[in-house]
Amino acid sequence: MKILFLNGPNLNLLGTRQPEIYGRTTLADIEAQVRTRAAILGVDVEFRQSNHEGQLVDWVQEARGRFDAIALNAAAYTHTSVALRDAISSVGLPVVELHLSNIHAREEFRHRSLIAPVCVGQVSGFGAFSYILALEAAVNVKRSA
Amino acid sequence: MKILFLNGPNLNLLGTRQPEIYGRTTLADIEAQVRTRAAILGVDVEFRQSNHEGQLVDWVQEARGRFDAIALNAAAYTHTSVALRDAISSVGLPVVELHLSNIHAREEFRHRSLIAPVCVGQVSGFGAFSYILALEAAVNVKRSA
Amino acid sequence: MKILFLNGPNLNLLGTRQPEIYGRTTLADIEAQVRTRAAILGVDVEFRQSNHEGQLVDWVQEARGRFDAIALNAAAYTHTSVALRDAISSVGLPVVELHLSNIHAREEFRHRSLIAPVCVGQVSGFGAFSYILALEAAVNVKRSA
Amino acid sequence: MKILFLNGPNLNLLGTRQPEIYGRTTLADIEAQVRTRAAILGVDVEFRQSNHEGQLVDWVQEARGRFDAIALNAAAYTHTSVALRDAISSVGLPVVELHLSNIHAREEFRHRSLIAPVCVGQVSGFGAFSYILALEAAVNVKRSA
Amino acid sequence: MKILFLNGPNLNLLGTRQPEIYGRTTLADIEAQVRTRAAILGVDVEFRQSNHEGQLVDWVQEARGRFDAIALNAAAYTHTSVALRDAISSVGLPVVELHLSNIHAREEFRHRSLIAPVCVGQVSGFGAFSYILALEAAVNVKRSA
Amino acid sequence: MKILFLNGPNLNLLGTRQPEIYGRTTLADIEAQVRTRAAILGVDVEFRQSNHEGQLVDWVQEARGRFDAIALNAAAYTHTSVALRDAISSVGLPVVELHLSNIHAREEFRHRSLIAPVCVGQVSGFGAFSYILALEAAVNVKRSA
Amino acid sequence: MKILFLNGPNLNLLGTRQPEIYGRTTLADIEAQVRTRAAILGVDVEFRQSNHEGQLVDWVQEARGRFDAIALNAAAYTHTSVALRDAISSVGLPVVELHLSNIHAREEFRHRSLIAPVCVGQVSGFGAFSYILALEAAVNVKRSA
Amino acid sequence: MKILFLNGPNLNLLGTRQPEIYGRTTLADIEAQVRTRAAILGVDVEFRQSNHEGQLVDWVQEARGRFDAIALNAAAYTHTSVALRDAISSVGLPVVELHLSNIHAREEFRHRSLIAPVCVGQVSGFGAFSYILALEAAVNVKRSA
Amino acid sequence: MKILFLNGPNLNLLGTRQPEIYGRTTLADIEAQVRTRAAILGVDVEFRQSNHEGQLVDWVQEARGRFDAIALNAAAYTHTSVALRDAISSVGLPVVELHLSNIHAREEFRHRSLIAPVCVGQVSGFGAFSYILALEAAVNVKRSA
Amino acid sequence: MKILFLNGPNLNLLGTRQPEIYGRTTLADIEAQVRTRAAILGVDVEFRQSNHEGQLVDWVQEARGRFDAIALNAAAYTHTSVALRDAISSVGLPVVELHLSNIHAREEFRHRSLIAPVCVGQVSGFGAFSYILALEAAVNVKRSA
Amino acid sequence: MKILFLNGPNLNLLGTRQPEIYGRTTLADIEAQVRTRAAILGVDVEFRQSNHEGQLVDWVQEARGRFDAIALNAAAYTHTSVALRDAISSVGLPVVELHLSNIHAREEFRHRSLIAPVCVGQVSGFGAFSYILALEAAVNVKRSA
Amino acid sequence: MKILFLNGPNLNLLGTRQPEIYGRTTLADIEAQVRTRAAILGVDVEFRQSNHEGQLVDWVQEARGRFDAIALNAAAYTHTSVALRDAISSVGLPVVELHLSNIHAREEFRHRSLIAPVCVGQVSGFGAFSYILALEAAVNVKRSA
Repeated sequence: MKILFLNGPNLNLLGTRQPEIYGRTTLADIEAQVRTRAAILGVDVEFRQSNHEGQLVDWVQEARGRFDAIALNAAAYTHTSVALRDAISSVGLPVVELHLSNIHAREEFRHRSLIAPVCVGQVSGFGAFSYILALEAAVNVKRSA
Repeated sequence: MKILFLNGPNLNLLGTRQPEIYGRTTLADIEAQVRTRAAILGVDVEFRQSNHEGQLVDWVQEARGRFDAIALNAAAYTHTSVALRDAISSVGLPVVELHLSNIHAREEFRHRSLIAPVCVGQVSGFGAFSYILALEAAVNVKRSA
Repeated sequence: MKILFLNGPNLNLLGTRQPEIYGRTTLADIEAQVRTRAAILGVDVEFRQSNHEGQLVDWVQEARGRFDAIALNAAAYTHTSVALRDAISSVGLPVVELHLSNIHAREEFRHRSLIAPVCVGQVSGFGAFSYILALEAAVNVKRSA
Repeated sequence: MKILFLNGPNLNLLGTRQPEIYGRTTLADIEAQVRTRAAILGVDVEFRQSNHEGQLVDWVQEARGRFDAIALNAAAYTHTSVALRDAISSVGLPVVELHLSNIHAREEFRHRSLIAPVCVGQVSGFGAFSYILALEAAVNVKRSA
Repeated sequence: MKILFLNGPNLNLLGTRQPEIYGRTTLADIEAQVRTRAAILGVDVEFRQSNHEGQLVDWVQEARGRFDAIALNAAAYTHTSVALRDAISSVGLPVVELHLSNIHAREEFRHRSLIAPVCVGQVSGFGAFSYILALEAAVNVKRSA
Repeated sequence: MKILFLNGPNLNLLGTRQPEIYGRTTLADIEAQVRTRAAILGVDVEFRQSNHEGQLVDWVQEARGRFDAIALNAAAYTHTSVALRDAISSVGLPVVELHLSNIHAREEFRHRSLIAPVCVGQVSGFGAFSYILALEAAVNVKRSA
Repeated sequence: MKILFLNGPNLNLLGTRQPEIYGRTTLADIEAQVRTRAAILGVDVEFRQSNHEGQLVDWVQEARGRFDAIALNAAAYTHTSVALRDAISSVGLPVVELHLSNIHAREEFRHRSLIAPVCVGQVSGFGAFSYILALEAAVNVKRSA
Repeated sequence: MKILFLNGPNLNLLGTRQPEIYGRTTLADIEAQVRTRAAILGVDVEFRQSNHEGQLVDWVQEARGRFDAIALNAAAYTHTSVALRDAISSVGLPVVELHLSNIHAREEFRHRSLIAPVCVGQVSGFGAFSYILALEAAVNVKRSA
Repeated sequence: MKILFLNGPNLNLLGTRQPEIYGRTTLADIEAQVRTRAAILGVDVEFRQSNHEGQLVDWVQEARGRFDAIALNAAAYTHTSVALRDAISSVGLPVVELHLSNIHAREEFRHRSLIAPVCVGQVSGFGAFSYILALEAAVNVKRSA
Repeated sequence: MKILFLNGPNLNLLGTRQPEIYGRTTLADIEAQVRTRAAILGVDVEFRQSNHEGQLVDWVQEARGRFDAIALNAAAYTHTSVALRDAISSVGLPVVELHLSNIHAREEFRHRSLIAPVCVGQVSGFGAFSYILALEAAVNVKRSA
Repeated sequence: MKILFLNGPNLNLLGTRQPEIYGRTTLADIEAQVRTRAAILGVDVEFRQSNHEGQLVDWVQEARGRFDAIALNAAAYTHTSVALRDAISSVGLPVVELHLSNIHAREEFRHRSLIAPVCVGQVSGFGAFSYILALEAAVNVKRSA
Repeated sequence: MKILFLNGPNLNLLGTRQPEIYGRTTLADIEAQVRTRAAILGVDVEFRQSNHEGQLVDWVQEARGRFDAIALNAAAYTHTSVALRDAISSVGLPVVELHLSNIHAREEFRHRSLIAPVCVGQVSGFGAFSYILALEAAVNVKRSA
């Protein structure tokens, strides 16, 4: 089983950006933690990050046939991208939506997720551990399918 | 470590109610699964269910000093109970919000969670496995605190 | 055939409360009228009232297997209770929504019924006679099913 | 006692139109059922249908002095006609609003009834039996006046 | 100079309808008062009334070339008729909007006039005298043009 | 009979300000026209103008016992002054609301008049002639009282 | 194959009305252009126009069995007529919505089409050529069915 | 004279909960302060608290004939309970609404009080002293009646 | 201790204006009552009234260093004055907001207070006694500070 | 004459994505159909697709001087891209907006097109044939200019 | 060249008021800084401040013929004064809107500026330096005209 | 000191696009003007433009450590890009928001700036001179820090 982790805009800055909200862990740190847990679960993972909406759409599309599920931290595009939503609808893979911070506890405009209605489910608010939960969730979705 | 699982209105019907949304697993089945995983994690869990908003408020209040964290599936009260929100604010324990179905993919009025802003985070949409993820999340929140 | 009549908050005060809106008939008077018509129709009825949302949810749940239909005057909870709505969705019995006053002619916040979308139909505005109509409706729904 | 049944736009198609919502009964079938019940109640009824808002307004106005009450299925004009609302306000007769389907369970724009605030009450969602209930309601309103 | 007075739905009931809002003067009484003042001003007037939106649209269209201005009491259609608005835009005649009651002091939905933006001006709230003012206004608009 | 004409902010600039909306007539020109018509009607008039909301409130209050009616062009304060509205409610004199331009055909925020619900009626859109109509209306209100 | 072209309120004025929006072509001119193209496509067309909402509803209803498709320029009723929407839902024929002007580029209240959700598709903004496109579209819908 | 003080959800936690908003005074402390002032004023008081909406409704209903007025700190139910509002409307006793914190200075959803329109008045924002003011207010309302 | 009582627009008319809402007591009567209670409490008070927003802003500003607290009945400016709000924020004195009538039970636009978020608390609905309560509140705020 | 067909995000998946909405035709199939019709009309066409908003903006800008008109299926960017709208405004070429599905019959957020107000017109809902109609429309716009 | 600097309510308190938002610089300090820069630019400036909306309107009106441009910090009236907006429209001088704090980063109700649409442009958020920028902007507007 | 000027979508067209709004100056012209003023102020500037949201996000991120401040004309992305907002929050540099036209005087959807709350301040409406002002502002922010 192979899970694709996609990371949206500004997540490359993780660990330096607004640490009071996101903590000091970098995206590389998170990837390492995810790989450790993935090994235990016996699954492969791949990590990618882009600030470009179109690039994320491309990656979602290309995942078909190469991955079993997607764990997606769309960051800012969560709230503005219909294109990403349509890509998820099209790809025919289960997508787990994940967020480091609890988006429901932040600014009003972050409460609405345009991609949520086309994802399997959402994990939000547990910092780097949200990635571990999303991995567990993705694996469970596939294994119980 | 002791985690209290609170279940809101109509969750006692689980397994018989709208199976196309919630599946056929009963609350007792879920409790059994959670206990299995809790044993692995080395934590105690307790399960309660009520259809009464006031009862849930009482339980949240009484958890202080007896439990380390709460995993809360507030069901319908998620969307209408300021009282539950205030109880969570008061209790001084980390509360993990959980939902069987993806509330963001259902009716408009289920998209807004009144309790989300005072919870640590949210897990939504993975069926019975949402309880396992909530357990993992609660344990992680306490252990990494 | 057995029909359960459930009455929500403050309906126990009927006949004393705001008579310009609800008239002077008590809930006991209404029950008597309903029993008379029920006898003619050859059906059994049972009347209950509670000010507690959770109690009403319990009663709706317990009706399965004991009653053929529910006639529900949810009063104030009509406009605020998602829990009651979910109970109705779960119970698998036809529920007829009824109101003494015409809720569509009162304050703005009474125009929206949270339970209407999961009920068979609505009778509103005919005072005590709304109960007779709801009884007729419930019987008809079952007989023509 | 004489009751006027007015039927709004597209009700002439009843029985052929969207049977999953309205069933296969025609307006003539309904009229027959209403006449049977009216005979039992000892009242006269008259049935009319028009697709023209102005015609319905004319009929409501002319009912004064000729009918004791109106049972009105305004169909689409329920949601758009202030003219019909004003006619009802002016005519000085009790008007019972009726709908075949449960308008509160359909599209958002059908939830608001412009005529409801000036009608005695509303019966909605019981198919052809809504007409029988409206007849009963109209007779009761007049007899208990 | 020739002024066409068009009267919308339910104005034929004037004098009998909701006298606490509109008074006891009939449309014929108003026409007589308008004719008296018109004679003083040296202009011709014509009075028509219809409950049919389409009829009012027809009359507005036909006024071109036959009348110099229109005084329009659109009644209920004031708030719902885009068709009337478009007819006014098309006819190329000055139209004075008039209302017996002060529409801005009544129900919320009567505050918005769909036709106001395409009329010369509005006279509202002076009972039958609103017609005299509208006549004066229409004459002034033409004479000062 | 004595009518007080109150003019709100920026009306002192009339004739110089946005002539495409208000024309080139000055407030003094209008006062002269009003005095001519007032003489014919046999009534006294007084004209005042202020850019100060508080001053207009003072004048409305002081009108009691000194004037029979007020003709009020509140200009910008029409849309923002609850104080003026309360003054009108308190003064116990009929107030006729008037506007040079058709406020319903201008910017969205000018469509709502805070004072309309407490005035007798509204005249809007006839340029300087709105003052003549308001005078006629005020006199008629008093004479027919 | 037979296509019915229905034209709503004020379209009879085409060519004289607001030419900066609609151009100088009359409805007869358009009919001629449509007939020319229809001949090429080998289909029959019929043109009707009415200012009456009820008349348009009647025509939509009567089209069943007599026409293969409807091309509908509902004009002002596009934005206000639930009755027309219901007629389209009932008739069981494909309806192509068409507009001379681009309704999405005009006043806010013209952006919402009540009939769009029950039509096959929409053509808007190409002047008289919108009719040709609607004809092509209707023929294609039938031929590819 | 006898005044009933009713306290809603989570007020039992007073003194421990969010002290930066509510201070460290407990409900028992407040009761003592109220009793001291009540003795001076020569009135009896009774204090109750519940987390259950239905219990509060029961208590409001039972107050009739046993108390002269109610001082109600409905806490979270202030913003969500139509049932409590209806109970207040029915009970026929003056009810003084009170809040420890200034609800108008907190989250948006706490600005709207569903019970305010049926209470005599509101005291909000003075901490424990709000109870003393509410007592004074209730006594004054009864004595000046 | 010195408390400044500021009274906004139209309060000079108290006792004559809308007595069904405000009663027959004049502002001088209220001042007398406040002085009596102030003497008992051992504090000085000063009363001022103005219809001018700017004057009220000036007075709030000048209170610094001369008064210990302000009791403010801003009347109509409660709902429209950001300037008054900013003045309160700037002055550095505790301000108690007070209203004669229960603003939450009146027109919709009176429910929102622009100044509430920057005041200590609000007393609303107890007629002249609201001033006594505001005095008590202001004294308590200062003494318990 | 040369027409540029621009296709937005996810349209490269056409034929595989949600076939119940979009059918099984691929973008290459559509291009072939368009080329056939273009040959008949004697015009050149060029087809491009991108998932990147910025790329589409670049292409719109570069079309000036190289193409006579643009047929644009902006897909998801229809509803979110102000950048695309501004590009269309700037390019000085007629742009025909096109959609495969009837966007007015889908989710609420797809009803609003940000680009519609700056396009010539819209064709929506006819599947692959929407491209043919858009081609015809673009050619007609240029030829009749 | 002569530039008039107008300062609205509470700006006289500058340097003492909420220093965390506005800093400790007084209005006199700012005036001195502006005069220094004005001398360099070779222009005259005049500074005025008032808490009275009407006074600011008067000053805007009187600026015509005496000043070449206005730099306006309307403070609280920015968000509530239509009168000021109309004065700006009337005066025929370029007006530069300026704010010390970034109004777009403060409370929601400060995001909307009623005067912005009639000003040349806006400078907001640079503290006292906003005045220097506004001066530069005003001079540039006049010199490049 | 080094200031980075970032220019968003369509600004490369400056001088050709909608000259009635933006004038005929090109981006190169503006850069030249900015360089002249920068030389006087003794600072370095760099100019970049992109139509790609992701590119702008990349550039904002990379500015850290290379530039002292950013002057950002985000154009269309001002209103739609949460990604740009998050980048600005993360970068830890002062960002000055600038616009050629007065966005507050244009279409409603351009009034809201998603980036404003995380920028130092905004300059809007002075054409090319907005860049000079933004430069001055950025330099001042850094020098007075």
